[in-house]
Amino acid sequence: MNFLGSHILSISQFDKNDVKELFRVADEMQPYAQREKHTRVLDGAILGNLFFEPSTRTRVSFGCAFNLLGGQVRETTDIKASAITKGESLYDTARVISGYSDVIAMRHPVAGSVEEFSRASRVPVINAGDGPSEHPSQALLDLYTIKKELNIEDDFDGIRIAMVGDLKYGRTVHSLCKLLNLYSNITFTLISPNELKMPEEIVEELRKSGHEVIETEDMESGLENNDTVYLTRIQEERFEDRNEADIYRGRFRLNQSIYTSHCKPNTVIMHPLPRDSRAEANELDNDLNQHPNLAIFRQTDNGVLIRMALFVLTLGVQDKVHESSVEVKWYTEKRFK
Amino acid sequence: MNFLGSHILSISQFDKNDVKELFRVADEMQPYAQREKHTRVLDGAILGNLFFEPSTRTRVSFGCAFNLLGGQVRETTDIKASAITKGESLYDTARVISGYSDVIAMRHPVAGSVEEFSRASRVPVINAGDGPSEHPSQALLDLYTIKKELNIEDDFDGIRIAMVGDLKYGRTVHSLCKLLNLYSNITFTLISPNELKMPEEIVEELRKSGHEVIETEDMESGLENNDTVYLTRIQEERFEDRNEADIYRGRFRLNQSIYTSHCKPNTVIMHPLPRDSRAEANELDNDLNQHPNLAIFRQTDNGVLIRMALFVLTLGVQDKVHESSVEVKWYTEKRFK
Amino acid sequence: MNFLGSHILSISQFDKNDVKELFRVADEMQPYAQREKHTRVLDGAILGNLFFEPSTRTRVSFGCAFNLLGGQVRETTDIKASAITKGESLYDTARVISGYSDVIAMRHPVAGSVEEFSRASRVPVINAGDGPSEHPSQALLDLYTIKKELNIEDDFDGIRIAMVGDLKYGRTVHSLCKLLNLYSNITFTLISPNELKMPEEIVEELRKSGHEVIETEDMESGLENNDTVYLTRIQEERFEDRNEADIYRGRFRLNQSIYTSHCKPNTVIMHPLPRDSRAEANELDNDLNQHPNLAIFRQTDNGVLIRMALFVLTLGVQDKVHESSVEVKWYTEKRFK
Repeated sequence: MNFLGSHILSISQFDKNDVKELFRVADEMQPYAQREKHTRVLDGAILGNLFFEPSTRTRVSFGCAFNLLGGQVRETTDIKASAITKGESLYDTARVISGYSDVIAMRHPVAGSVEEFSRASRVPVINAGDGPSEHPSQALLDLYTIKKELNIEDDFDGIRIAMVGDLKYGRTVHSLCKLLNLYSNITFTLISPNELKMPEEIVEELRKSGHEVIETEDMESGLENNDTVYLTRIQEERFEDRNEADIYRGRFRLNQSIYTSHCKPNTVIMHPLPRDSRAEANELDNDLNQHPNLAIFRQTDNGVLIRMALFVLTLGVQDKVHESSVEVKWYTEKRFK
Repeated sequence: MNFLGSHILSISQFDKNDVKELFRVADEMQPYAQREKHTRVLDGAILGNLFFEPSTRTRVSFGCAFNLLGGQVRETTDIKASAITKGESLYDTARVISGYSDVIAMRHPVAGSVEEFSRASRVPVINAGDGPSEHPSQALLDLYTIKKELNIEDDFDGIRIAMVGDLKYGRTVHSLCKLLNLYSNITFTLISPNELKMPEEIVEELRKSGHEVIETEDMESGLENNDTVYLTRIQEERFEDRNEADIYRGRFRLNQSIYTSHCKPNTVIMHPLPRDSRAEANELDNDLNQHPNLAIFRQTDNGVLIRMALFVLTLGVQDKVHESSVEVKWYTEKRFK
Repeated sequence: MNFLGSHILSISQFDKNDVKELFRVADEMQPYAQREKHTRVLDGAILGNLFFEPSTRTRVSFGCAFNLLGGQVRETTDIKASAITKGESLYDTARVISGYSDVIAMRHPVAGSVEEFSRASRVPVINAGDGPSEHPSQALLDLYTIKKELNIEDDFDGIRIAMVGDLKYGRTVHSLCKLLNLYSNITFTLISPNELKMPEEIVEELRKSGHEVIETEDMESGLENNDTVYLTRIQEERFEDRNEADIYRGRFRLNQSIYTSHCKPNTVIMHPLPRDSRAEANELDNDLNQHPNLAIFRQTDNGVLIRMALFVLTLGVQDKVHESSVEVKWYTEKRFK
């Protein structure tokens, strides 16, 4: 893929070299995200942060990433109440809003709508989640987290990952599978209620590529011998009958005692967040909050790096970030401790 | 008018020289809006972007214009849920919020409320629409678009414009008529259902000034021989009985075939947006989207220039914009193509 | 208190020296707030402005203060609609959002929640109001206003203040009492309906410290001989039965005629705003709007200075504000007149 001026709509756009380039740029963003210095490379640029459904974390992460590059953010979260209800097409919205922006991050509840929007946009559009479909920056930050946690150079061949929970509706595990499918010889252990299994076509695709896929309802055996265990929340908002979600909530839980008994030492613990910490759910227990291998907050920190890298590459400023850097003047000592 | 420090509440404040000055400054904003360079002239200034009712396009356009001049935007869209419900007067809101801002753009559903607010404000207030009443920057961007599309130097005398649709409730056509009334010898062809005719007092005023006004329910003959045709949406939200709006929706439509049959070549097509693209409305068909004379998205782009010019003039920085300019470092090639 | 890197959760953290230091820095912020110059000392820093309930004034004041120091603001007002409803804990929200921010201002309807959030935050958190509990920057701006209005050097000993209205639910008067309790020999005249008296434990504490406390239902005698009279709105949203609030609304009112008859000349008039200007309430009449001792809008202006000072001190840039200052280029003449 040539990143320059491109829309980022789907992880299927990425090959191994694209991922490598993106992760290299993300690494270079680290001193800026950690406030060791600040860059003004995007001074004067405007991000149109366009959220047709609420997602605080993703919205703020994109906005923060753009600010860290020196750009400004114009945000829209009330769009449902506005022109759309007066019959405006996505085509018109895209033509108009792209006239106000240098790049757009967009979330929409309907699959395919970000792609439809992007066809009419005059600036690059980054898909920040279109309903049950795609959320490429999430899959990329997950893979980037695996790379950093496992100290992987460039190549994810041979890693072992368990995915736990709602594998049917969990968009992030679908995307991560597709991204890992770029590499070779990975072992996927898919732990879920039978009714919430990973979609058959994804499993087929992984197997066709020669990966080992184990599907099980038995969490304890499934947890054995992985490098990473990736937990998910029951996606109650995607169930037709929300009461049905109650049946599965709380069925698979990771806590300190299960981790110690069943995971090999240093197994990385991931979760796309939000995790459901209500007593009846609690798929990832708070008693692991101080565990050094709990990577969930490093994941969200990595999201900023990945989004900075996407902006840098689509706007073509990778060679100018450092020359535009200035000193950080405020106290940051406790920042990332 | 002396722009410096003034409130911009109504197009009735403008004479021909004011319009000329504003458009001259808007022209100078072009390289900044097109990201050929960036200016920091308003570095440190704060726009209070105060929307008491939602309007994504207008809100983002004002915010974008201010960012392009190097300023910051503090936005309020949730104000109904806040102090106002605790009995706060517009006077108090204005005294307080104007202490946080260097200039304010304000939209409010009630006619006259922006003017009331401005009397208590300590900084210039730009009316971004007060209900059915005024929306001066829209009328100015419409006129500026006519100037640019028809390649007019300074003088709109003798042009021919058709206005189509809901001319009773359409605030933008009222304001545009008043603004065009500054010039001489214009031909207005007003095409609307009898029940949605242009208010009598506006028609009278135009005729008194010597303009020709033709009112008709026959779209096909009305479209003949104009320089510009300005379409409008049925303003269903202003009808007392919304079902009544259904009667008129879809009655007057412009599409490729009607345009070719009835408009003279190069007739400029305008619309204040949003256009209603639902099948039952569709007052301006998508089959004209690629037409070179469709100016509707150039209109919204021009809105940024006009709003930049309003900020520049009320804040008195017209002589400092260029000396504060810096290089744009990111990829912009496809930007306004 | 060592401000550097600290959370600002409660006025009980402050001793007299802290207040003195804060007010000294606030004084230094004056030329920036009045747009005599602009500072970029926080260029690159991000404020996470996190409002779990709406409060336009406080939200914009914090955002404005941060912008005036050169920083960027990422705002969240829709958080209820988001991850929290999916069962996310405050701990998780804090870990995540603090990764996107350099400092956080947070309002929440539940007492104690800001403190809970701060324990998990990786950056300083400033309490912008947690329900009926604390709102330290409000108490500080109130005291700072008293200092400036009464031309006090450092010491509030011996001043006389009347507090009027809903002293039971009014969070701001509670906090101001606690803050004034740092000083000596103050006379508090507490004017309220018997049912809405200042909580007994606060009165006890003041008396224990040797202050004189007069409680009365008689406004006219209570107003006599004060330096400052501090009015409050009936906090109807805190009543279990909102109809009960109607009984007390409008019972104690200050207007021109009462002021002239009962207050000594130059008594400073304060109110935390919003004031309820509906006819049935009107605790502070609009006929005093032009009165030179009406300090209510200077109070909100002072709020910006106090919040700038809190950011400067917690982020440790007090020695760098001036060296980062740049010229203000736009017209500001009528700004604070």
